[in-house]
Amino acid sequence: MEKLITIAQVPEHVGESVTIGAWVADKSGKGKLQFLQLRDGTAFFQAVVFKPNFLEKFGEDAGAVKFDEIKHLGQESSVYVTGTVKSDERSKFGYELDVEDLTVISASEDYPITPKDHGTDFLMDHRHLWLRSRRQQAIQQVRNALIYASYDFFRDNGFVKFDSPILVGNSAENTTDLFETDYFGQPAFLSQSGQLYLEAGAMALGRVYDFGPVFRAEKSKTRRHLTEFWMMDAEYPFLSHEESMDLQEAYVKTLIQGVLDNARPALEMLERDTALLEKYVATPFKRIPYDEAIDLLQAHENDDDTDYEHVEHGDDFGSPHETWISKHYGVPTFVVNYPASFKAFYMKPVPDDSTRVLCADLLAPEGYGEIIGGSERETDYDKLLAKVKEWQLKEEDYDWYLDLRKYGSVPHCGFGLGLERMVTFVSGIEHIREAIPFPRMLHRIKP
Amino acid sequence: MEKLITIAQVPEHVGESVTIGAWVADKSGKGKLQFLQLRDGTAFFQAVVFKPNFLEKFGEDAGAVKFDEIKHLGQESSVYVTGTVKSDERSKFGYELDVEDLTVISASEDYPITPKDHGTDFLMDHRHLWLRSRRQQAIQQVRNALIYASYDFFRDNGFVKFDSPILVGNSAENTTDLFETDYFGQPAFLSQSGQLYLEAGAMALGRVYDFGPVFRAEKSKTRRHLTEFWMMDAEYPFLSHEESMDLQEAYVKTLIQGVLDNARPALEMLERDTALLEKYVATPFKRIPYDEAIDLLQAHENDDDTDYEHVEHGDDFGSPHETWISKHYGVPTFVVNYPASFKAFYMKPVPDDSTRVLCADLLAPEGYGEIIGGSERETDYDKLLAKVKEWQLKEEDYDWYLDLRKYGSVPHCGFGLGLERMVTFVSGIEHIREAIPFPRMLHRIKP
Repeated sequence: MEKLITIAQVPEHVGESVTIGAWVADKSGKGKLQFLQLRDGTAFFQAVVFKPNFLEKFGEDAGAVKFDEIKHLGQESSVYVTGTVKSDERSKFGYELDVEDLTVISASEDYPITPKDHGTDFLMDHRHLWLRSRRQQAIQQVRNALIYASYDFFRDNGFVKFDSPILVGNSAENTTDLFETDYFGQPAFLSQSGQLYLEAGAMALGRVYDFGPVFRAEKSKTRRHLTEFWMMDAEYPFLSHEESMDLQEAYVKTLIQGVLDNARPALEMLERDTALLEKYVATPFKRIPYDEAIDLLQAHENDDDTDYEHVEHGDDFGSPHETWISKHYGVPTFVVNYPASFKAFYMKPVPDDSTRVLCADLLAPEGYGEIIGGSERETDYDKLLAKVKEWQLKEEDYDWYLDLRKYGSVPHCGFGLGLERMVTFVSGIEHIREAIPFPRMLHRIKP
Repeated sequence: MEKLITIAQVPEHVGESVTIGAWVADKSGKGKLQFLQLRDGTAFFQAVVFKPNFLEKFGEDAGAVKFDEIKHLGQESSVYVTGTVKSDERSKFGYELDVEDLTVISASEDYPITPKDHGTDFLMDHRHLWLRSRRQQAIQQVRNALIYASYDFFRDNGFVKFDSPILVGNSAENTTDLFETDYFGQPAFLSQSGQLYLEAGAMALGRVYDFGPVFRAEKSKTRRHLTEFWMMDAEYPFLSHEESMDLQEAYVKTLIQGVLDNARPALEMLERDTALLEKYVATPFKRIPYDEAIDLLQAHENDDDTDYEHVEHGDDFGSPHETWISKHYGVPTFVVNYPASFKAFYMKPVPDDSTRVLCADLLAPEGYGEIIGGSERETDYDKLLAKVKEWQLKEEDYDWYLDLRKYGSVPHCGFGLGLERMVTFVSGIEHIREAIPFPRMLHRIKP
């Protein structure tokens, strides 16, 4: 068989005869014409079968049999199709195939996901097939573009990838929301953040980051929660908290620009407002102290268009508050220096106000909520040890982490970005379950 | 404070006064001179403190105090050091710093890892600090270069990153070597391969790959085994088994070249024979059918320089056999078409010989053993179902996987490469435990 090309390569072959391996996503026809919507994962495009051409090429009988076979191809049948590439200004893709021959690789019958509407549970049960739909492919292409933009950003900024372990003998934060496993007779937990290990990496290798799966055994059933998701954590010495936010802002802009540059057809398929994404790249992100955000929320709590609950200084935000804040500014917004009481033990207090810590959450606009959590880390051994005790963490679990403050402690900051939150935001989709190939949620572990 | 530069940036600042944040890896001196070996994760280089300069700059008393402080700096103390960059042809790095000022950030005393020899257990217990040593940093830099070369290769070859799940309701292969966890009342396992999911991805998105941690609860205590390691799996439709090996060969060459291009100082630090690595890139890999390999092993089993056990056709290889084969050819060697009996159920039989399957293991030379396992996958629904039954796998665990053969099955191949095996091979190191930041092994879950 002649060498195959992909649909994405079709534009380079206008006027040539090519062969493509593909699936029949959809099909229509009338009389002597059959229109096949082909997909091969790289793109979708239309192949046109004109019966008289087949009769002429293969003879009256054989040609009619071949045309009839095509006419009855089931959805998702796999085929090798040979034809001449033609420009087609009417189609979005811009090209179509004038079919000269078609060989069925494997006929598909009764494909479960038809063009009609299906319920979410049904689609999730068929996730292995649902991924073939235009929308799901587009979301995965956005995800892929985000992953590559992330790797590029860290390489360009002198970071070393430093893979934190998943199986840990202790938990990063003292919570019961951990998956546990038996590790040859002793308990081990699935990591919910690589941060503490990254701090060791930063003291050894300078700027480091990891990017891998993390786990939270939370019984949350919201559209923003997965039990298994991909987290990018970065940690870097010798930057101030302000410089750290500069780095995070540059990172998020690089991620968005990466999708605009490399997955624009996917954004178009998803009907994402790309002008908004371009605005986020072009506009400085907002930075607002937590206490100012509380003042603002209080001042607006009786507005006609607000629907969040009253918050006091010292309270944590809920989703409605985050949504309102980022909507208020219309760009990604850092909320800075939260109360120490509900943030992690390792965060460094604000100078002259030990009730607040040098941290920032980055809230995505349009109701997408928190996409980054970051902070400057406590560098003083005694203060950190006091925090470990105050938080009632087991000291022996953190001895190695405390060592980082004993032997050449240096100022350092870090942050973590949830990939699926970012996919959801950039894709403009409603639910995080579509942002990862095989989502894991409270009642969902298969397929 | 003026803007810091890293040691890696020093060559761009010859003749200039710069400030660096760094750790004192080692120190020596005589009389009016102190030589500090500085490290900041990007590189190591020497800073020279000349007492008379300090006396002149800070005055007799303050200068003497400052010099004395430097003289007594403990290993791994963290410092801001300001000085003028000078070329220094005697040093490997090529530059040194003529120190004008030094501020101690955090003094370090009694750093546990001294220049003397330490036992492996001690070093592993202090892995969070051990990573600061020259050798460990170099290995992580090789790892980083391999990771980037991998991402570049897949991007250049039209692959989409497709993150397979870690938590799975069923096991990829029917083995007891799985870590189990309670998933909200039902058992779940940590994935030991993303392959089956990737096959679903390949049918949806074309060429796909994943690159993440996988887990094997094996009680192995060899220098080649970790319980948690990073695996790169790729899966692609419409390539033959031969073309698949071409792709794998190009991939491995890209990985090696990536390290040669981007981590050469690390290879030099590790005293890796780079001429050998260059040879592997320049020379076609060997491909030898399994049965020919057995013949060859039998023919040489009584040679003076062999020390492997007799093998029969149908036997699996042990490490000594793999070592001998790859040594015999002196380049990475594919052993092709193993017996079906000890390979996975999803592999496609060799046409006309159902006792053999279309698979290949890639053996690294120099005794490093298997780095890739790959195969063409069974595409026929009935044959695959028969295999599932024959292997006594639970059919309901594989219903979704079987669907991939029901709805538009296409020829496809894939392979998996173990990152740490590759790090070990390219670095030329003895034991896999040094190839990952925080190794997990039979008796090792901390730190």
